[in-house]
Amino acid sequence: MRHVICARCVKCGRAYDAVPDLTNCACGGILDIIYDYDYIKSVLHKEDLADRPYDMWRYRELLPVEPDTLLPPLRVGWSPLYEAERLAKQLGVRKLWIKDDGLNPTASLKDRASAMAVAKATEAGAEVIACSSTGNAASSLAGNAAAAGLRTYIFVPSRAPKGKLAQLMSFGATVISVQGSYEDTFELSRQAIARWGWYNRNAAINPYLSEGKKTVGLEILEQLHWEVPDYIAISVGDGCTIAGLWKGLKDLYAIGWIDRLPRLIAVQAAGCCPINRAVEENAPWRPMEENTLADSIAVGVPRNPDKAIAAIRGSRGLTVEVTDEEILTAQKLLGTSCGVFGEPAGVTGTAGLKKLCQQGRIPAEATVVSVVTGNGLKDVANAIRASGEPISVPADLGQLLEAFAQRGIAPEAQSG
Amino acid sequence: MRHVICARCVKCGRAYDAVPDLTNCACGGILDIIYDYDYIKSVLHKEDLADRPYDMWRYRELLPVEPDTLLPPLRVGWSPLYEAERLAKQLGVRKLWIKDDGLNPTASLKDRASAMAVAKATEAGAEVIACSSTGNAASSLAGNAAAAGLRTYIFVPSRAPKGKLAQLMSFGATVISVQGSYEDTFELSRQAIARWGWYNRNAAINPYLSEGKKTVGLEILEQLHWEVPDYIAISVGDGCTIAGLWKGLKDLYAIGWIDRLPRLIAVQAAGCCPINRAVEENAPWRPMEENTLADSIAVGVPRNPDKAIAAIRGSRGLTVEVTDEEILTAQKLLGTSCGVFGEPAGVTGTAGLKKLCQQGRIPAEATVVSVVTGNGLKDVANAIRASGEPISVPADLGQLLEAFAQRGIAPEAQSG
Repeated sequence: MRHVICARCVKCGRAYDAVPDLTNCACGGILDIIYDYDYIKSVLHKEDLADRPYDMWRYRELLPVEPDTLLPPLRVGWSPLYEAERLAKQLGVRKLWIKDDGLNPTASLKDRASAMAVAKATEAGAEVIACSSTGNAASSLAGNAAAAGLRTYIFVPSRAPKGKLAQLMSFGATVISVQGSYEDTFELSRQAIARWGWYNRNAAINPYLSEGKKTVGLEILEQLHWEVPDYIAISVGDGCTIAGLWKGLKDLYAIGWIDRLPRLIAVQAAGCCPINRAVEENAPWRPMEENTLADSIAVGVPRNPDKAIAAIRGSRGLTVEVTDEEILTAQKLLGTSCGVFGEPAGVTGTAGLKKLCQQGRIPAEATVVSVVTGNGLKDVANAIRASGEPISVPADLGQLLEAFAQRGIAPEAQSG
Repeated sequence: MRHVICARCVKCGRAYDAVPDLTNCACGGILDIIYDYDYIKSVLHKEDLADRPYDMWRYRELLPVEPDTLLPPLRVGWSPLYEAERLAKQLGVRKLWIKDDGLNPTASLKDRASAMAVAKATEAGAEVIACSSTGNAASSLAGNAAAAGLRTYIFVPSRAPKGKLAQLMSFGATVISVQGSYEDTFELSRQAIARWGWYNRNAAINPYLSEGKKTVGLEILEQLHWEVPDYIAISVGDGCTIAGLWKGLKDLYAIGWIDRLPRLIAVQAAGCCPINRAVEENAPWRPMEENTLADSIAVGVPRNPDKAIAAIRGSRGLTVEVTDEEILTAQKLLGTSCGVFGEPAGVTGTAGLKKLCQQGRIPAEATVVSVVTGNGLKDVANAIRASGEPISVPADLGQLLEAFAQRGIAPEAQSG
């Protein structure tokens, strides 16, 4: 890869050749892919993008793949960025955009990392990929690997919602449901991967995955015609996604396509916020319980705290924690005001933004992007909990009238 | 609309001005929108498409909207068309493409019709839209209307799966769950719409909705660079979707962008196939029970039989019925071979194609497109029924080894 210099440990600084099956540094630190930005500037220009397919690979010169790497088949990326005027007004910011990354092929942002994993596994000549996951990384890996003809072994905690399990099984993965926490699940996957030599798609082990995730940042800026928003809000679990987002933004700054960097808004669940707590206390992170219904970000022992904390600090970012109730309120808010249906962890970024606005921590003239990281269909039980049940009636107009009257619904007042 | 001549009844031929709030003909027949193809040929050329956004509105000259109509915000259409080489080989056809329409904003093809409904309701100055639906039309209407700031009243049969209900509630629709069949549901919605004068999004009443659905056909052909496949397979319930698909294909033929028409493969559930039965028996359609788990196409009293039967006959189409078991087998087949996860009704087209191939009714040199009409996340319970449960183990490698051995799983044999 002419445009990649090496992979460097974020802890000790040791450099490694960027071979396809990189894992962590010998010191235990996670690696970061280092690019030759001068070279990239010489071969990639904004105008080049005009003719390219609308998917994550349109930024190929900024991605750690060989020029001849066979790209995986599913169409990942270029999710819509909606301007949300009514919601901006309601929250009290000048402009707000919602990036609906739940519209990826397996319905979450994790497709970006999994597509990268499949591309790198193909480079490595692997036929089997494995990962542990709270659910979305798993289903995205299973789907992207199935499309490419690769086999998968997937480790999920037993709490993973039905929607994610259904995807996994349908994609033909061998799924191991681990009776324990995400930490237990991760550890069992580590042992199994070590034993059988599978290609490792654990996001905090394989340094290429953040590079896939960073495409969400590249897209947001391209969709905004390279006009930098003041803030980008996103939910934080393991730490890999916010780290990836930040990497993408820094890449664009490094090649001179944007002239400043947005500030990140890192949102965690109040019941599980080790990364935010570390930032707020300016202290090393400590494990926490996993007390939130937002299963995708219920990560008590984050696997990528270093990169995530560096991203939040590096962007002069804001941290905020939200309750499960605030998450469910944000879910309904996005649905009713924008027609965007996100899973609980997917809407946590918006919940945090709303809270910061209420606290007066976001200026009224600010421009903000909020990333929805997964589709609400992944976790239907909690959506129904958030939104209530329908009005059930027999097929009779009289009884419908009665049901409306009981609930104070007056259709006459609303007809156009 | 300079490019629209009128709306004409498919039964009695009576013509109507194409006003935004058209419903059925006085004779009860459904209307068809009639275009001035000579005019369209003079203003729309293939090259014009190059610079347009990738959504259903890129074919605006072929759609029944005013030039200044405000288009609804959600990004509907331009779903991916995947070439499925392994599956083609397995089924025994020369080429096969899967159109994954489950990647629309609310995860089904129905978004195409609902976006059109919102556009036309906006033209009509309506503030409330209503429909009855087996589920997907409902959730798509609720989502597209919410994004546009319109209110919705939605009637669904009580059997609608949880995923679709969760979407509806999250989008803030007023949802009436009717204790009865789809027919009962439709009838109650009819009475309520008549009473309150809401804008009517019932697909077999509002002639504009097929015009939205037809964009799936326009896209397939553009994605194939206007090379016509021999067959297009799709599931059939109410009849509106296959009728819309056929309308799109005929439009392209009428303006000279394609030089022949594909044959349609109309697939219904064996337990509910009134349209196919009418075609096969060359007799008027008769009601049937709704005996299938494919809820979206469980329509015993189809509301659009005329257009659907005309489409199947007009294309020299094939009909085929599949059992629920064959539907679930197709779901798993699409997941494992293509990484595409469809709901039961969504994969029924593929199930039918598979059956026809097995019966030797599709030539080996044929090229085929199979449309997946909705995402598997809409109906998780049936997906799990199709694909089985994961392997549940404690967080212990020894027990994992044992569980693998019990199931005959030998990871060593599969590592790359």
